[in-house]
Amino acid sequence: MRVLITAGGTSEKIDNVRSITNHSTGRLGCLIAKEFLHKQVTVDYVTTVQAKHPVEDKKLKTHEIAGTQELTEQLQHLLQKNHYDAVIHSMAVSDFTPAQTFSQEGFLEEINHLFKEKNGPLTKADLTQIAATNTTEEKKISSDIEQLYLVLQKTPKVIQLIKQIQPETLLVGFKLLVDVSKQSLITTAQTSMEHNQADYVLANDLAKITKHQHIGYLIDKYGQLVDEKQTKEDIATLIVETVMN
Amino acid sequence: MRVLITAGGTSEKIDNVRSITNHSTGRLGCLIAKEFLHKQVTVDYVTTVQAKHPVEDKKLKTHEIAGTQELTEQLQHLLQKNHYDAVIHSMAVSDFTPAQTFSQEGFLEEINHLFKEKNGPLTKADLTQIAATNTTEEKKISSDIEQLYLVLQKTPKVIQLIKQIQPETLLVGFKLLVDVSKQSLITTAQTSMEHNQADYVLANDLAKITKHQHIGYLIDKYGQLVDEKQTKEDIATLIVETVMN
Repeated sequence: MRVLITAGGTSEKIDNVRSITNHSTGRLGCLIAKEFLHKQVTVDYVTTVQAKHPVEDKKLKTHEIAGTQELTEQLQHLLQKNHYDAVIHSMAVSDFTPAQTFSQEGFLEEINHLFKEKNGPLTKADLTQIAATNTTEEKKISSDIEQLYLVLQKTPKVIQLIKQIQPETLLVGFKLLVDVSKQSLITTAQTSMEHNQADYVLANDLAKITKHQHIGYLIDKYGQLVDEKQTKEDIATLIVETVMN
Repeated sequence: MRVLITAGGTSEKIDNVRSITNHSTGRLGCLIAKEFLHKQVTVDYVTTVQAKHPVEDKKLKTHEIAGTQELTEQLQHLLQKNHYDAVIHSMAVSDFTPAQTFSQEGFLEEINHLFKEKNGPLTKADLTQIAATNTTEEKKISSDIEQLYLVLQKTPKVIQLIKQIQPETLLVGFKLLVDVSKQSLITTAQTSMEHNQADYVLANDLAKITKHQHIGYLIDKYGQLVDEKQTKEDIATLIVETVMN
């Protein structure tokens, strides 16, 4: 048996010294890897430099990535090369990537110019065009600017790649929300499962995650709650047992 | 003798799951701490969870911070409580902090509204006002937005606190640029030294930092090049010897 696990949080470069980072310690991913390795399963583990890494093991191969583009390429490569019985996609992937940076002056110039040209309200297409115009890549944004305007573009959903390449693999997705009701969390998890063709989703709420507690709901593709756990260790065991049965 | 060292890179929260992070491994800071500890100097070490930490030592006290606000408070606290013979400020501090987030639609609405009201070009004050209006704090920005507009505000220069509180301490600042000439790097370092009342600045260029090389120029307050080094270890030794002589 062979599984692919993603864990940690991606970083998207703003310039050479700054990034937008999605927080994720990678601790839950490590526990999932440990459980699989204990059961003699071969694990490909995709993570970041910053995240906690699993303890070395002869059945474990770790692949480090930084941003969503690199993650996409790494997953394409692995999914085309190996057959996976399951993919556990616990990585916190950036939903947005910096497309454009403007100083307040520069941004003002762009919008005033367009307003003058159109002599009327701007449209979404106008803003999109402004964001696409200035393609100079900044090496390091000057710290002398008073206000900076950062335009971020939605990234493609990396999770959707998985079933496109391996329709027969068992896919476990993750959905993290912040301070919502259990019902709202489960409903959102169901919707994301349909969009991403996942077989299970582990739904969790940041407000219910502390050092020693991690409340997680495992939902199956029929929208049914498989089980509910209170710690990272128990969530890892639940996922591994569900995948292996 | 007692010194204060800052190292690592700060993170500014965008929402509960995303931050803007300044990259810094904290490796050079660790080497500087190690040299001081080896010479029986008491070290207060301010760093982040993510950065490399120095090896524990009875003369070392570590203080963890995340963002610039927390860094400011920690430095004020330490500088008011203890007398430092020197402060080595190697931390990469965020120059900008997220002030406001808009969806493309929300931002468009704001600027079109202002244009209609003014019937003429917008000014910097108008943009500043837009950035200040929406004060709703986002728990987690929805990933369904196509384009996100992030307004970032310049942070106060934390380094300027140091001499304000302890005018008699010896302050070593750091200046990192990316891919510039040696002359331009040294000139920028001199300017930053004057602004921040530093006694020395270690000027370095990200393009000249690799795994085994770290080119650094130590400049004194008269703008003279004290010395030039090729590795983190040699830079650490140079700084500690300069401070102790």
